[in-house]
Parts: sequence; C-alpha cells; structure tokens
Amino acid sequence: MPISTELTDRLGIQHPVLLAPMDVVANARLVTAVSAAGGFGILGGGYGDRTWLEQETAKLGKSTAPFGIGFITWSMAKQPELLDIALDARPRAVMLSFGDPKPFGARIKQAGAILICQVQNEELARQALDAGADILVAQGTEAGGHGASRTTLDVVPAIVDLVAGRVPVVAAGGIADGRGLAAMLMLGASGVLLGTRFYASEEADIAEEAKRRVCAAKSGETVRGIIFDLSRNNVWPAPFTGRCLVNDHARRWIGREVELMQNVRKVGADYAEAKARGDFDIAAVIAGEAVGLIHDIPPAAEIVGRIIAEAEQSLRGRRNSTASIG
Amino acid sequence: MPISTELTDRLGIQHPVLLAPMDVVANARLVTAVSAAGGFGILGGGYGDRTWLEQETAKLGKSTAPFGIGFITWSMAKQPELLDIALDARPRAVMLSFGDPKPFGARIKQAGAILICQVQNEELARQALDAGADILVAQGTEAGGHGASRTTLDVVPAIVDLVAGRVPVVAAGGIADGRGLAAMLMLGASGVLLGTRFYASEEADIAEEAKRRVCAAKSGETVRGIIFDLSRNNVWPAPFTGRCLVNDHARRWIGREVELMQNVRKVGADYAEAKARGDFDIAAVIAGEAVGLIHDIPPAAEIVGRIIAEAEQSLRGRRNSTASIG
Ligand SMILES: Cc1cc2nc3c(=O)[nH]c(=O)nc-3n(C[C@H](O)[C@H](O)[C@H](O)COP(=O)(O)O)c2cc1C
Ligand SMILES: Cc1cc2nc3c(=O)[nH]c(=O)nc-3n(C[C@H](O)[C@H](O)[C@H](O)COP(=O)(O)O)c2cc1C
Repeated sequence: MPISTELTDRLGIQHPVLLAPMDVVANARLVTAVSAAGGFGILGGGYGDRTWLEQETAKLGKSTAPFGIGFITWSMAKQPELLDIALDARPRAVMLSFGDPKPFGARIKQAGAILICQVQNEELARQALDAGADILVAQGTEAGGHGASRTTLDVVPAIVDLVAGRVPVVAAGGIADGRGLAAMLMLGASGVLLGTRFYASEEADIAEEAKRRVCAAKSGETVRGIIFDLSRNNVWPAPFTGRCLVNDHARRWIGREVELMQNVRKVGADYAEAKARGDFDIAAVIAGEAVGLIHDIPPAAEIVGRIIAEAEQSLRGRRNSTASIG
Repeated sequence: MPISTELTDRLGIQHPVLLAPMDVVANARLVTAVSAAGGFGILGGGYGDRTWLEQETAKLGKSTAPFGIGFITWSMAKQPELLDIALDARPRAVMLSFGDPKPFGARIKQAGAILICQVQNEELARQALDAGADILVAQGTEAGGHGASRTTLDVVPAIVDLVAGRVPVVAAGGIADGRGLAAMLMLGASGVLLGTRFYASEEADIAEEAKRRVCAAKSGETVRGIIFDLSRNNVWPAPFTGRCLVNDHARRWIGREVELMQNVRKVGADYAEAKARGDFDIAAVIAGEAVGLIHDIPPAAEIVGRIIAEAEQSLRGRRNSTASIG
C-alpha cells in the first residue's frame, strides 16, 4: 500500500520523502541513494562552491532517477551563474530557501524545473507563491540548520490553510520516522523533507564522529541561536538562526553573544582550527530536535524504507495495540 | 465511527478530548459542558482559592458525567487541604502539573481517583511514573500558559517511547482542531488536552474581550517568557515560563526583563490596575500558538463535536482531495 499524495504525483516519485539540501553533506552519492529508493534527493548547493557543484552535478547526470538541487537563496544571489550550472544538470526541481525567490523563479520554471520554496511563516509563503513556487516546504523551528522560531505543529497547518490546495505543502523540522510522516499527512501536508535523519546515514558526506554524536544526542540537546554563525564569521540575515547540537562551545557562549562578538577574531581562529582537526566539542554538529529519534547510521535507502513502513502502520492504526482508531 | 483509544477506555469517556484545568477559566460550567459532550472536563484548581474551589466542586457534584480536578502542584503543596476538598467531590481523575507529584500520588489513588500528570520532558515523566501516574500529559512549548521549551512534535514521541505502553499519553500544546488530534494519534498519543481552544468557548469564565483577542490573533503572535509573571508578582520555579498573546505590555518589556525587575513595584501596580479595568493591552491574555487556528467562540460542546468530526475525516484520508493515503 504505497502512500501516494499530491506531492508524489507532482514530482513523479514513489514515496513522499524528500532529502533536504544540506550544504555539502547532501552530495551526489546521498542524493542518488535517496532517489533510487523512491524518495527525492536534493543536492545541497550550500554557500556556492562552484567546483563542488560542477563535480557533483556531473555525477548526478548519470543518475536515472529524478533529483533536485537546492540553494541558500541569499547566498546564491551573489553568484547567480551557479543557477545556470544547476539548470544545465536538468534537475526535476530546484529548491530555494532563505531569501526572496522572485529574481530566480521565472528562469527556473522556463528551464522546465519545478520550483520548491522553503518558508517559515505566512509572509514568506506568500512571497514564494508570488515567485511561482510549485511546492512549498513549511519549516518549523525543530529543524536542523538554519530556520526561524515557529514550530512545525504551528507552521504546517498555517501554510496548508494559506495555500488552500493551490500547491502541495511539505513539512520539515523534527521529523525522523514514520510516525512523523503520518502525523504531517494528518495536518494536511503531502510529504516530508528530512535533514537530520539523513545526516546520520551511511552516504552523508560528513565525519563519522559527527554522525555518532547525532546518534548519541538526546532530544532537548540541540539549541537554536547565532553562536556558531558568529564563530565561523558567517552572519545570516534575520529572522534566521541555526540549530546545532549543544557542545562545549555552545555551553560556553550561550547568553554571552555580545562578549563573543567582542572577541570574535580569537574565537573565530580557535573555531576554524578546531573544525579543521574535527574537534566537535568546539565545531558545530548541525542537527535538529529529531536527534532524539535517531540511534543508528543506516544506508539512506533503509531510512526511506523504514519511514514508509512505519507510516503505513501508523495510518492503519495498528501502532497502539489497544487503540481502535477510525 | 468513534475514536476509541486507551485513554477513552481508561477514563470511561466517549471522545479522547480533555479540557485543560485552566485556573479559574475552566470553572464548573465549562467542565460540565465538555464532559456532557463526551469529552473530559478538568476543573482548574488554579493557585488555590478555597472558596472558589468549594463553590465549583459543589456545582460539579450535581453532574452525572465524569470530570477531573487539576492543580498547579507547587502551589497546592502550600495548602494541601485543598486536595481533600477536591477528593471529597469524587472526581474521576486528579491532574497535577508543575511540581513533584510524589507527596500526593498515594492519597489521590487511595481515594479511587485516576492520577494524571502533565510533564514537559523525560525526567519529569519518570518522576510522574514513580509517583504512580496513570496517565501522562506530554506538554509542548506551543501551549498557552505555563510550560517549558521543547515542542509538542518533539516531546510527544519522546514520552510515548519512554512509557513504552505502560500508561496512555495525552498530547498538549498547539492543538485546536481535528487535524491536530489525528496527528497526535499518529505520534502514538491516545488523546489530546486543549486549553486555548476552550478559552474561546461560550462557557469559559473570562472577559469577552479576552476571547475576542484570541480569535483575532494570528499564529506567531504569542510569546513565552516571564514578563507577565514578573508584572503580577507571581514568579514560577524553573524551567517554567508562561505563554500569552503579544500585547503592548509584552512588546514594551521583551528583552528588558532586568529593567522590569528593577521597576517591579511601579510596573506591578500599573499592571494590577490595568487588569482590574480589563485593559488587555497591558493585562495578559493567556493563550498558546494555536490561536492561529481559532476564529470563533462557540459552545464547548460544538468544539468537541467539530474536533471529532474533523479528526475522523483526516483519519479516513479524505481531507486532501487528491491524496490517496494508505
Ligand atoms: C546539516 C544540515 C545542513 C543544512 N543545510 C541546508 C542548506 O544548505 N540549505 C537549506 O535550504 N536547508 C538546509 N538545512 C535545513 C533543511 O533544509 C531542513 O529544513 C531541515 O533539515 C529539516 O529539519 P530536520 O533536520 O529536523 O529534518 C540543513 C539542515 C541540516 C541538518
Ligand atoms: C488560560 C490558561 C490557563 C492555564 N492554567 C493552567 C493551570 O492552572 N494548571 C495547569 O496545569 N495548566 C494550565 N494551563 C496549561 C494547560 O494545562 C495546557 O497545557 C495548555 O493549555 C495546552 O496547550 P493549548 O493552550 O495550546 O491547548 C493553562 C492554559 C491556559 C491557556
């Protein structure tokens, strides 16, 4: 019993599970694995490393399954030629997050790609629809990486009501298992976009130690803020902040952001050095509230398979042995 | 097709919808209305006004439907005789929130009442189970009134996994319609507890102007913090903070809590005066993130009926016309 929705129809995929375009973590290998499993892999355009993008899109060219390419909009806007490289790779969809998609919407759609926009509130959703978005991702504060303050349970129905059926809505932030997918379908979403869960996958392009820390972390052990962005000299426009695991560096600076800024040269140098040697007591492990649900590092295809099997079970109402739902 | 779950079995009720014990807002009239509609009304014990409690429990004595009585545990602990008044009224359940339930668990259960504990994380859940809790309410930060920082989407599956089927788990925080109920069932909860939605009901004992403001507020227009507790000289123990509508008073003091404390006499006097004259630009309207889903002030029975009808529709997968879920 497959879970088919407006989203699976629109993207021409089997399962309503999307891989988030996690900067360089979601590389061609991870994208291909998710798409081959019937989900939809989206390559991380990240902050715009042209060589990386050319190399990874070249690999994707050989893939038969459909895939997407994602950009951090405000960053890509500084090097708009990256969008051409992306479109040359013939992605089924381009995903834009964090910034006004208007300047790029027409070009993406003229190239025959589906425009996916990630939004955090109604105002950004309206902006995305104006830019011609074909699919909206409603992202809650639980999300790993950058995002804003409203929760997934709040923002998903709000965006579903706003779009009123015009385009499919995908839920993101805090989802890592089939219960989460089933819950989001009940809220009116037609699929989910997952970052943190795929971060702890075999194919994700990130240090093993970082993956292990995601598995070990409990729910409640992540924090949203600006400490890591300050420390790596990568300041984002409001209202966006970043969610990472709480580590020594976060514990040291939470609530002392002004002091950090006053000492940013020294802190930044130490941070860069720690990152280079893979010291995740200082360097950020970018992850969301869903860490509490993540305990292993399977192949991405297994993650997709599990989520679908669990969601089907939840939807059939058999999860709770004494509950006869529906 | 009724939605029967472990929770409806345990409480002997028809619908898995509980009225939150909102201090004096959830009075005997509102409790009776919710219970008569097949949900479960819980009287607000609030901060312990003995006369109010005697008067409201006397009214409940005449009710034929089962009901509960709720307490703010740390506050009730200062006047434990209130628990005797409550138990004399023969509630089907006593609900304890915010504080260690251990000193009261045995007495409640010896009196033949079911012990419901509201918790915000795993540690508090373990404490509640140790105290003999028969039902846990997992409360997320979206909730109106006091609560903590983790989101409903995060805390509900975390508590469901922790209890591993020993007791039913009820979801609270940010739920105001049938989509929310259906979503929480998917996460493994066996029902929901609603505050803000019932605040905007005909029977709720609160100024019409406050109810109107809940209807007018959009999602994203509430804030969790300590400003209102500081202003009314009612400081809570950590980790609890309160969520209210953003109003002039909140806008004025957010981020200036220290200054507020330094001027607390004057601010407190002005606040008390504003509250007395029903000026909700200054006095708090206690409400949660679900305000965005609330647009009217129906009788409580109608709220219960709508939620169940909507949840049944979501569970049947007919909500989204083009989605064939399951
Ligand atoms: C390691 C990591 C890196 C991310 N990088 C990006 C990015 O470059 N562009 C983007 O649009 N979103 C990025 N995100 C956010 C995702 O798009 C998505 O909203 C989020 O992962 C969903 O929440 P979850 O992590 O709980 O699944 C990133 C997330 C993570 C965990
Ligand atoms: C006006 C108001 C007063 C509240 N007072 C109490 C209280 O006295 N005791 C308590 O346990 N919870 C209280 N709560 C919190 C509720 O128990 C519950 O967690 C919350 O209302 C659920 O979230 P929701 O408001 O989004 O439905 C109150 C909530 C509101 C909105």
